[in-house]
Amino acid sequence: MSDFFADIPKLTYAPDAEGLAFRHYNPDEMVMGKRMEDQLRFACAYWHSFAWPGGDPFGGQTFDRPWFGDTMADARLKADVAFEMFDLLGVPFFCFHDVDIRPEGESFAESRRNFEEIVDIFAAKMETSKTRLLWGTANLFSNRRFMSGAATNPDPDVFAWSAATVKLCMDATHRLGGENYVLWGGREGYETLLNTDLSRELDQMGRFLSMVVDYKHKIGFPGTILIEPKPQEPTKHQYDYDVATVYGNLKRFGLENEVKVNIEQGHAILAGHSFEHEIALANALGVFGSIDMNRNDYQSGWDTDQFPNNVPEVALAYYEILKGGGFGTGGTNFDAKLRRQSLDPEDLVAAHAGAMDVCARGLKAAARMLEDDALEAPRRARYSGWEDPQAQAMLTSDLETIAARVEAEGLDPQPRSGRQEILENVVNRYV
Amino acid sequence: MSDFFADIPKLTYAPDAEGLAFRHYNPDEMVMGKRMEDQLRFACAYWHSFAWPGGDPFGGQTFDRPWFGDTMADARLKADVAFEMFDLLGVPFFCFHDVDIRPEGESFAESRRNFEEIVDIFAAKMETSKTRLLWGTANLFSNRRFMSGAATNPDPDVFAWSAATVKLCMDATHRLGGENYVLWGGREGYETLLNTDLSRELDQMGRFLSMVVDYKHKIGFPGTILIEPKPQEPTKHQYDYDVATVYGNLKRFGLENEVKVNIEQGHAILAGHSFEHEIALANALGVFGSIDMNRNDYQSGWDTDQFPNNVPEVALAYYEILKGGGFGTGGTNFDAKLRRQSLDPEDLVAAHAGAMDVCARGLKAAARMLEDDALEAPRRARYSGWEDPQAQAMLTSDLETIAARVEAEGLDPQPRSGRQEILENVVNRYV
Amino acid sequence: MSDFFADIPKLTYAPDAEGLAFRHYNPDEMVMGKRMEDQLRFACAYWHSFAWPGGDPFGGQTFDRPWFGDTMADARLKADVAFEMFDLLGVPFFCFHDVDIRPEGESFAESRRNFEEIVDIFAAKMETSKTRLLWGTANLFSNRRFMSGAATNPDPDVFAWSAATVKLCMDATHRLGGENYVLWGGREGYETLLNTDLSRELDQMGRFLSMVVDYKHKIGFPGTILIEPKPQEPTKHQYDYDVATVYGNLKRFGLENEVKVNIEQGHAILAGHSFEHEIALANALGVFGSIDMNRNDYQSGWDTDQFPNNVPEVALAYYEILKGGGFGTGGTNFDAKLRRQSLDPEDLVAAHAGAMDVCARGLKAAARMLEDDALEAPRRARYSGWEDPQAQAMLTSDLETIAARVEAEGLDPQPRSGRQEILENVVNRYV
Amino acid sequence: MSDFFADIPKLTYAPDAEGLAFRHYNPDEMVMGKRMEDQLRFACAYWHSFAWPGGDPFGGQTFDRPWFGDTMADARLKADVAFEMFDLLGVPFFCFHDVDIRPEGESFAESRRNFEEIVDIFAAKMETSKTRLLWGTANLFSNRRFMSGAATNPDPDVFAWSAATVKLCMDATHRLGGENYVLWGGREGYETLLNTDLSRELDQMGRFLSMVVDYKHKIGFPGTILIEPKPQEPTKHQYDYDVATVYGNLKRFGLENEVKVNIEQGHAILAGHSFEHEIALANALGVFGSIDMNRNDYQSGWDTDQFPNNVPEVALAYYEILKGGGFGTGGTNFDAKLRRQSLDPEDLVAAHAGAMDVCARGLKAAARMLEDDALEAPRRARYSGWEDPQAQAMLTSDLETIAARVEAEGLDPQPRSGRQEILENVVNRYV
Repeated sequence: MSDFFADIPKLTYAPDAEGLAFRHYNPDEMVMGKRMEDQLRFACAYWHSFAWPGGDPFGGQTFDRPWFGDTMADARLKADVAFEMFDLLGVPFFCFHDVDIRPEGESFAESRRNFEEIVDIFAAKMETSKTRLLWGTANLFSNRRFMSGAATNPDPDVFAWSAATVKLCMDATHRLGGENYVLWGGREGYETLLNTDLSRELDQMGRFLSMVVDYKHKIGFPGTILIEPKPQEPTKHQYDYDVATVYGNLKRFGLENEVKVNIEQGHAILAGHSFEHEIALANALGVFGSIDMNRNDYQSGWDTDQFPNNVPEVALAYYEILKGGGFGTGGTNFDAKLRRQSLDPEDLVAAHAGAMDVCARGLKAAARMLEDDALEAPRRARYSGWEDPQAQAMLTSDLETIAARVEAEGLDPQPRSGRQEILENVVNRYV
Repeated sequence: MSDFFADIPKLTYAPDAEGLAFRHYNPDEMVMGKRMEDQLRFACAYWHSFAWPGGDPFGGQTFDRPWFGDTMADARLKADVAFEMFDLLGVPFFCFHDVDIRPEGESFAESRRNFEEIVDIFAAKMETSKTRLLWGTANLFSNRRFMSGAATNPDPDVFAWSAATVKLCMDATHRLGGENYVLWGGREGYETLLNTDLSRELDQMGRFLSMVVDYKHKIGFPGTILIEPKPQEPTKHQYDYDVATVYGNLKRFGLENEVKVNIEQGHAILAGHSFEHEIALANALGVFGSIDMNRNDYQSGWDTDQFPNNVPEVALAYYEILKGGGFGTGGTNFDAKLRRQSLDPEDLVAAHAGAMDVCARGLKAAARMLEDDALEAPRRARYSGWEDPQAQAMLTSDLETIAARVEAEGLDPQPRSGRQEILENVVNRYV
Repeated sequence: MSDFFADIPKLTYAPDAEGLAFRHYNPDEMVMGKRMEDQLRFACAYWHSFAWPGGDPFGGQTFDRPWFGDTMADARLKADVAFEMFDLLGVPFFCFHDVDIRPEGESFAESRRNFEEIVDIFAAKMETSKTRLLWGTANLFSNRRFMSGAATNPDPDVFAWSAATVKLCMDATHRLGGENYVLWGGREGYETLLNTDLSRELDQMGRFLSMVVDYKHKIGFPGTILIEPKPQEPTKHQYDYDVATVYGNLKRFGLENEVKVNIEQGHAILAGHSFEHEIALANALGVFGSIDMNRNDYQSGWDTDQFPNNVPEVALAYYEILKGGGFGTGGTNFDAKLRRQSLDPEDLVAAHAGAMDVCARGLKAAARMLEDDALEAPRRARYSGWEDPQAQAMLTSDLETIAARVEAEGLDPQPRSGRQEILENVVNRYV
Repeated sequence: MSDFFADIPKLTYAPDAEGLAFRHYNPDEMVMGKRMEDQLRFACAYWHSFAWPGGDPFGGQTFDRPWFGDTMADARLKADVAFEMFDLLGVPFFCFHDVDIRPEGESFAESRRNFEEIVDIFAAKMETSKTRLLWGTANLFSNRRFMSGAATNPDPDVFAWSAATVKLCMDATHRLGGENYVLWGGREGYETLLNTDLSRELDQMGRFLSMVVDYKHKIGFPGTILIEPKPQEPTKHQYDYDVATVYGNLKRFGLENEVKVNIEQGHAILAGHSFEHEIALANALGVFGSIDMNRNDYQSGWDTDQFPNNVPEVALAYYEILKGGGFGTGGTNFDAKLRRQSLDPEDLVAAHAGAMDVCARGLKAAARMLEDDALEAPRRARYSGWEDPQAQAMLTSDLETIAARVEAEGLDPQPRSGRQEILENVVNRYV
């Protein structure tokens, strides 16, 4: 045991506790027929919690962690602390990138060996830990070699490097029993159209994704391939802009039945959508996979990756998830980082605990709304005119026939209230 | 002749004129093998120029036009003035909605008769005018019956009304020799997800669009069906969010070879894109159709529909259009309205004239950049590594093979400058 | 009694009611030493509730109210219905503009007489109603004469008209016992700098405001003069941008002790601030007056004026208000409008009732946080270093002395955690 | 001589050159009575050009500069290269922070000694170089000690450290003949109101600024103290939000005659303003000082610090500057960084050269508009009604008198066109 979390005991459900505890997250409580833990499927993100130094564009490292450094010993200590936190929180899952867990080597091969050594350590730890792998992924954006993209790079050698890296990370994810494999194209986009061959880059991206899907089948990986949409940042424009854009790309490459989306609240906001919109749309298009439950600040035009703290908003997200049948292989990942002034180990644990409670409250409110038919009954009523056979027939008719009927019957449709405020009041009775 | 533009003479190309004239727009000048008029294909928008009263959410009518009113006489005067302006400006095209040109009747049938009477007048005027119809469209968003959508309305009777209206407008467009038919789904979206069946509404929208395409073929309309993307406003979310979203919807309904997009600069901005991005993407996806050349104010979070006035920005838009081969049936429509304080007839003419000059400057700069290979040569050089057979082979390879090569060859790709500032300097030598 | 709210009974506090009732707003409950009603001081806005037809920039009237029209009979019916709603809701206050309550006349004098007749009716109604006037104001932005501003108009006659209108509205406000008089400069700003003399317009605005203050003293109006900041919309730039800007203007004209601010959540958001920021800043600068408790949609770049529905956000606003000592003459005005699809009388009542409950929940949470010292204790601790006499002395020292001490004492300040997530968790225990 | 710019010759004005040259910037050309160099007063920013490694929140260093490192030898090489670039470009000015030019020491004293050694080197270089110091400044935001602010820090020792640092930088600026001293409060603001004592922090900031002004007078520094407004980033809210906010703070602390503003285009955009607005407002309030001529990307919600490339926009900024009388001690600083993919020395030189040409074009267009009275004549005409003695008298009158006149004279002001589009056309004849 490291002594990083020395004074912090394992958290339990204790609604009336004074100190660090779960006041709402009760893993064994049943919610819509499943244990709460199995509905929420929480995951911690290795990168923000253990690899991020606290920098921003105007200042460098603020965190002072004993494992910061470039050696394998540092990487092993980091792994120890990570699994200690997973245990403290009792989270069922974690997520990681290759570069989070190992030092960069002098060559691809050396980096690979470093990576595989830590993956071995993970495998050993997971034998005694309850924590499983929600998803693995490759960081194809931080190293300077990726500055102009990974799969979409003008240099084919970077495409090759990226392909080799994804293969490596898929292998590790498969070995560790990961339930999904995620691709976030942090530099798959452009800084300026002036130097970009948009059409060629989209084709490269499609080809790369097809190879990923082929490899999944080849190795028999039973998990889900997920793409994480984001509209911009670090690039000016990212090709996986939002759920609708990803869907269009998938359709174009014939991959809409092979790949789903991992939706992040903060990325939804940057793209001009609500989180619940992106979830609802993914469900409508049949590509909903998983979520990153970390919010952006509405006032800040960049990705702030904050822990969720607004129960009414979180409730609407889980409402759409539950309405769609809940998570399959997906889960609730906190791709969230501490504010750079939150220096203490306690901050790290408390931030996750608070977020887990916020999600638990949101989930329970969402479940009650569904169980009470509180929103679905009025929704069905609003569209009930479409149950009429003549209305249904119209959908397989044609413009001329319909136009003739409009005049023949002297149709004069009258608007009916959309009752938005009343429905908002309904939600407020649950949150 | 009305006397609305009494003192304003027909505009001509006169670079050194003091008063109202074209200083850059020279219809007969050849640009990349076509007359400038045939490259730019300007259109005036009937609605903003002749039907908009100058209101905004905090104030009502400011314009005082002799044709404002609800009678057929008003509508006929409006048509006279409109064609007088088309003639003053020498624009080759115009565009209109049904409600712009006729008073609303007591019933669908009466509105239809009013509409058809004005369409007859248009047809007569067009026999002696050079102005043709770039596109017709139906206004399915202003009347209160459309408050909850048109094709996506919870009330099937509104769907029917909308279908009948589109049929009517397509018939008129066909009769007037229109080169395109446009659908802008101003209320195809939602104010709140709480009362919305997203999946059902998307299906209704797809079905409606399929009927439109079927009807086009049935009547032998040779023009192009265009969808105009917009992310929001008036609704909180519009289903035709941006080019990528429209493409995904078309693919989903199997209509990607039947329908193209009409891209508006202001809508691109609202969706978080540059205008040139949306054009380039539409070209890459094979769905580029036409443009609405009216800008938004970058500081205002709503659609301001201003006349274009920034030559460097306009040049980048035409660059993408020319690079893609120029307009087919599409053109440059000014879906632009005067500021509500611009009360005078002269303002209306001068605004169009200034915009036409801005576009002419942009087009000429774009053409020179293409002719000089000023941007394409460096672009080809940037991707030249992909011309290598080994690079091409990789695109049909697989992750394992590529990964083996990365280690075997000890690949270590080194980044090369993207030269953004140098390319921006190149552009500035042309604009 | 009109029959507009025919089936809707007077609302009462009934936490377990099924139908329309207050579940949280309990006027007589004591919160921090005052009745809840006296802490919240709710007001209904006449304009949105009774004068707004449901239009937006892409569509016209959706509401169908029996009093819509231009006659004095319409205006009287509107007044009847308004006071019926005030009574149903039991709100202690209302607010109005001149143009909300009377038809426009042919001349200033006729408009004035119309206005005064309705003010008489209000006075009579208020003798038997509990509802008082929170504030009166003048609409100096809707009529086309104000299209280029009111006090800042290039035409001195519009300045004169505006001055006469404000005098009239101040007289009415005084007569009706109003507790404040508000100025919102809806067109005090510009559409383009190209035609604007910024310096001159700011001087006109300052001079106008000084006259308002002088007139207040002359007539012995005991209420507060309030300015309502907004950054833009309808204009591209409004001079009363935000609280900080208004403060600077007041200081410039020597009015910082005469005028306070009425802060609207939606306007704060448009200006890039949180609502609680604007309240906290106004308290810090000594100019906090009153609030408009209506939210904007974070995704929409225009003023949506929605009823509040997010308790955690509302709680933070009331926290700053209570921390500053609560309202003086100010209150909680709902400058909120129904969504244009919310057509029914029930929508209007339910929207207000839901909003009142949201505010009541927020207020109670805020009060408990203050009473528990839950946020103030850690805040004091964070700054406790400044209690040291040497630290205090530094504030009256000089750079040289301090610099000498830094080297002499070898200062090496170490950062301490800002504990943001822990404080957010604290808030979540209360909301 | 280092060999960093080995193949790049000194740039000259050569309008028809093929390679690196000035096509529009001609230092000796007279513009409104001054040499162009003396109107524009260009400065290079040491930090972005020589100290920034190319990182962003999702990736680290991309630039590979021979002087990157922590030794004094590195710092000396950096200084050599910097002055070589100043010489290549022929810029008359540069700007720097303390941390740009020296390695951090183990203590304040060691950092000071490192700093002073490089300042000595600067002084020596400046004896033979034409390049002078536009302004010096202190970096009080990058080191982790400043994570919670500098003057506004909860820890008084950080206030002390900041005071000592500013003294040191003011001394160096004075010694090097700097024409201004700038304060940018990068962390003077907050991440969350929950842990912030807003009122106390504003007082600390005011007190700190007063000390700076006192010290300026004490040492006889003849330059101008400038504050650089920015609304947010890195913090959620910065106290020097925009020009209007800074003005209010200065008035509050009685410093409005002692301190002016350094306005950055990118910061203006982030605050919801146009660049020309901020300049015009600063002129109206008497606090205009200097500019940072670097643009933001309108699509990116963070500070991108790009070199200017849009002539029409730049022209409007210089128009306001020239209209206000031109620069005094201020100038045109390029607080601009290369895109992180622009790796080559040529990129650095070309980016500055292109920006200088853009500014030269903008300046010349602005000067011609002023000389032709092209915008000022219509502006005067628009407000000419205020020249009437009765109008002027009204400004010293009162509401009652004015109201009486409105009715007595039956005023009925009629709106007149604001002619925005016509004025935009006028501008387009010059740019």
